[in-house]
This record gives sequence, C-alpha cells and structure tokens, in this order.
Amino acid sequence: MIYAGIDLGGTGIKAALATEEGKILGKKQCPTGASREWPFIMQDMCTLIRDLAAEQGIALREIGGVGLGVPGLADPDTGELVYAPNLPGCRHMPAADYVSKELSLPLFIGNDANVAALGESLWGAGRGNLRCTVLITLGTGVGGGVIINGSIFSGAFHGGAELGHMVIHKDGELCGCGRRGCWEVYSSATGLIRSAKQAMQLTPESLLWKLCGGDAEKIDGRIIGQAADEGDEAALRVMDAYLDDLAIGLGNVYNIFQPEILIIGGGISGRGEKLAAPLRERMKKEIYGGDASKLDLRIAELGNDAGVLGACALAMQNVEGKA
Amino acid sequence: MIYAGIDLGGTGIKAALATEEGKILGKKQCPTGASREWPFIMQDMCTLIRDLAAEQGIALREIGGVGLGVPGLADPDTGELVYAPNLPGCRHMPAADYVSKELSLPLFIGNDANVAALGESLWGAGRGNLRCTVLITLGTGVGGGVIINGSIFSGAFHGGAELGHMVIHKDGELCGCGRRGCWEVYSSATGLIRSAKQAMQLTPESLLWKLCGGDAEKIDGRIIGQAADEGDEAALRVMDAYLDDLAIGLGNVYNIFQPEILIIGGGISGRGEKLAAPLRERMKKEIYGGDASKLDLRIAELGNDAGVLGACALAMQNVEGKA
Repeated sequence: MIYAGIDLGGTGIKAALATEEGKILGKKQCPTGASREWPFIMQDMCTLIRDLAAEQGIALREIGGVGLGVPGLADPDTGELVYAPNLPGCRHMPAADYVSKELSLPLFIGNDANVAALGESLWGAGRGNLRCTVLITLGTGVGGGVIINGSIFSGAFHGGAELGHMVIHKDGELCGCGRRGCWEVYSSATGLIRSAKQAMQLTPESLLWKLCGGDAEKIDGRIIGQAADEGDEAALRVMDAYLDDLAIGLGNVYNIFQPEILIIGGGISGRGEKLAAPLRERMKKEIYGGDASKLDLRIAELGNDAGVLGACALAMQNVEGKA
Repeated sequence: MIYAGIDLGGTGIKAALATEEGKILGKKQCPTGASREWPFIMQDMCTLIRDLAAEQGIALREIGGVGLGVPGLADPDTGELVYAPNLPGCRHMPAADYVSKELSLPLFIGNDANVAALGESLWGAGRGNLRCTVLITLGTGVGGGVIINGSIFSGAFHGGAELGHMVIHKDGELCGCGRRGCWEVYSSATGLIRSAKQAMQLTPESLLWKLCGGDAEKIDGRIIGQAADEGDEAALRVMDAYLDDLAIGLGNVYNIFQPEILIIGGGISGRGEKLAAPLRERMKKEIYGGDASKLDLRIAELGNDAGVLGACALAMQNVEGKA
C-alpha cells in the first residue's frame, strides 16, 4: 500500500507519497500563505496529493490514507487542526472531513514534532526500536516527540510532549510561552545565536565577526560551529555553555522517559558527531543512578523528510493497525 | 479472584489481600531488617501471605497472583529486584522464582513509586481515568509514577519516570543523586524542612521554635504547615517558596505528560486542599499554551495503602490481561 504524508509548516506545505517501507516515491511542495483562510490551504494540500499521484501514475484509490503533521494542537479524534499560532486562519480546520470529501481518503492528524518523531522512530535513526524513542528537535525552538511502543505519546489531550517547555533554570530568562527558564530558551538555535551575539559584544577580536562579515545579525548556528571548529575562544565558550544546558535538558528527558534511543534533530544536529560525542560525555553525570551504559544518543537521519515520512507513517499505522 | 500485594520498604514489609475491585480483605506487616540477605526477606514475604490467607480462610490456590513493589530498580521481565540502595543484601533478588517455588504463585514486580501510582490510578484518586495519570509523591524524596492507558510507564529499561530527578534549577543545590538542582531537592519534605530550619536561624521569634519545643531537629512538615496556618511569617515565607518550586516541577510534568489526572501523594499531601488549591492557582502560569482548563489536580486517596493496593493491581493486570 502507498501512503501520502503532508508536513504543514508556517512557510511551506510539503507532501510526499511513500511505500510501507518508508521509501519516498515522490515529493512536492508549495508556499503556505500562512495568513490565508483554511479552505485555501486545504485545497493546496489536496492539489499536491493529486499531482503527486498523477506523476507517479497512481490512482487515488491506491493510496491507503493521508497523514498530516501540523505546527500546533491537533485533535486526532476529530481530525481537526485545533489551533496553530502561526496559521491564524486555520483555527478548527476540519482536515479529515475536507480530505474525505475531496479525495475520498481518510486523513490522520498529529502535531508536527510528534509526527517527525514517528518518522525518525520508524524509518530513521530509531529503526527497529519498539519500546521508547524520543526525538528532540533543536531549531527555532526545542521540539519534542515521544514514541512509546511504536505510537505517538502526546498526553491525555494531545497537547503534551512539550519537552522544550520544561523549566531547567528557575527564574531564568523569559520564554515565548510565558514561563521563565524553559529549556527552549537555552537549547534552541535561537538561544545559541543569542549567546553568540552577547559574546561578540565582549570580544571584538572573535572570528565570529569575520565569519558574519561584521554583521552580527547574520550569525547562525553553522557560523558558530565553524568558528568553534577553528578554535575561536569566544565561539568555544558559547558552544561549551550551550552543550552544558543541552545536556541538562537531555538528562531530564532521559530520567523521565529512559528511551531506548534518544535522537537529536533540527538544524543544530547538522553538526553530527561534533554535537553527539560531547553530549554523550556530559550526560554521564546527568543520568539517574549513574549508569549511562544504556544511553543510545543518535543524530536524526531523515533531515527535512522526517515530517512527510512521519505523516505517511501516521497514516499507515492508523490504516493498518499499529506498526 | 483475590490478589496479594506486597510493599517492600526500607523499614517495613507490608502485605495485603484484595479483591478485583480494590477492596482490602486483610493486611499484615513485619520489619524489613534491611541489612539481611534476600532469602530471609523473601521468606518473610511468603509468611505474610500465608498468614493472611489463613486468617481469611482462603487457600493459596485461590489467589490469582502476587504483586510486589520495591524501593529500587525492578526487572518485570525476569521478576528480579535488580538493585535497591537501602537493601544491600537484595541485589538481584529473584522474587518471582522464589514465590513460584514457595507458594506456587506467579509474582509481578515493579518500582514502588510506579506501583503506588498504579494503585491510585486504578482504585484511588485516578479512578475511572483511562488515558494518563501521574502520581507525584512528596516524601523523603520526590517520587513519580506514570500510568499510560492503564499501565505503568517506566521507560525502555524499567528505570524511567524518575520525575524527582529532573533539574529545575541549573547549578542549584546538590541532590543525593549527584546532579545539581533536582526538583527533589526543593519539593521533598526533606527540602521543606531544610528551608524551614534555615528560616528559623534568621527568625528567633518564629512560632516554628515554639512548636518544635526549641529543638530545630524536631521540625517536620506537619509543624511547618501548622505554623503557616497560624500565620507565622517565617513559616508562610517558607511555604510560599516551597509552593513556587513545587508548581514549577508540576508545570514541567504537565507540559510533558498532560495527564488527565495529576495526583499529589506522600506525607506533605496530608495538607489536602491547603496544598492543592494554591498549587492549582500557581500552575495556571506554568501550563504551555496558557490553558489550565483541563488541569485536574487531586490529593491522593489511598494513603499508606497505595503501595499494597498498587501491588495487587499489578498482579491483577498481569494475570487478567491489562485492565
């Protein structure tokens, strides 16, 4: 059976068709037009699926179902996107109803971080793991997705697994969510960049200035990594403090979920082993009972496809019964 | 069917027989003798069950199975107590094998905090909830137990759900586990008492001194609560700071698990609504998305029976298939 997956983001709508083994047959995307009302966005999703099917010479009835990952609160019971902060016209968007009428296909919805975690768990870095996988995504924010016994865990009301909004620093810096000292404030790419900018103000000789062409607004995670790799002291200090905070949050996640596999994804994970190796070392002192022998920390493998593949996996699980 | 439950603690071994509805038919206990080797401890457990059965006029073969909660790491797959910090002679105690040979009954093992959570979830404050219940126990430490879809969740290797060992205060006070700033340091009864003692040093006029007869070593949670209730300023400040930290940790737990019911147990929970009401108020600003409408925070109902009842429930679930 073939499944369709859609990753609805604030800037783009990505869609893919994939096999039951997680092999992508085709991909397409279009701009979200985030300020639009939901019928236009739903229409574009359906068009992407129709176009993909036509390109692959597949009839719609050969598609087992559609999975959808959304950047907000999804209700799997009603198939609605309840609320997404960056998509004001999509409040209570009846995604499943719409796709049922338009394409005669069942649609299954989930939060995008959770859906990406399902993709990584099933077909990416977590392949073969059946008990518990956690994906932490280090991007604009810190996203979390928890897979237990092969299925997404998102709490009793589908809004849990907000791992980035765990306070690790009481009375710390203000988070966008209103709490103070959330993990996200320190361990997101945004947090890393903020720290680098602060360090640059104190170190005019830092390589960071050179690499960003003298414009601190151009600093990004990649530049900070490069400066650290070249031995720049300011960048090394920033990276060191970043890894400390990241390891504390990951230690919390480990002590709570004790995952079989702990996966790091998002832009920052592009550093690969340069990120993973020092984190494994730091986490040794964060794990309850001091036994880090079962820690299996990996870098995500699916990259930008985690969202659409996870969405295909979500559809597959719902249509075929749990994987 | 009737089930036997045992709560193995550092000071006492408690046992009970209960019905499938969680009604206790009889209870018995004996001292643990924590320094003893495990065969003596196992023997005492079997004696308690035999005596209870005899008292109730029940044949051993009428008992469906035995549940056992242990103060350490349990392996449900092998039926072993792997390790308990306070029971040095019980390393790799083969509880299931022993009870199988001695009583011809199947035994099912779990960590005591998790087992108590199962008891509260099934037959206590969480009755009727099927999706996700979390029990936080405020005692010598901060214990956590997570029930998902009616079953204990304890991570991939049975050592997870260590919610008390989540850092909420980076670089904070040293925890017994080796990390700094764990929730347990601030929100255990031990933490509350430590804060009260510190406050007493600065306020010789505090009612706390009077209530403990001038001996700060006699301070306990009950005394601190009483002094706060009588309006003592030092006690009120201590309690206020305690509630703040507790609400931060509970906020983290909520954002991660989004439980249908969040239960507070342990000695401190004896304050009942005087504890629960201000926590609900404080948690409003800790919940991601700002929607506290689904927060259902309750005080535990089973008291000291949560352990044995949870153990009976564990046996029942395993014998009858998941509740």
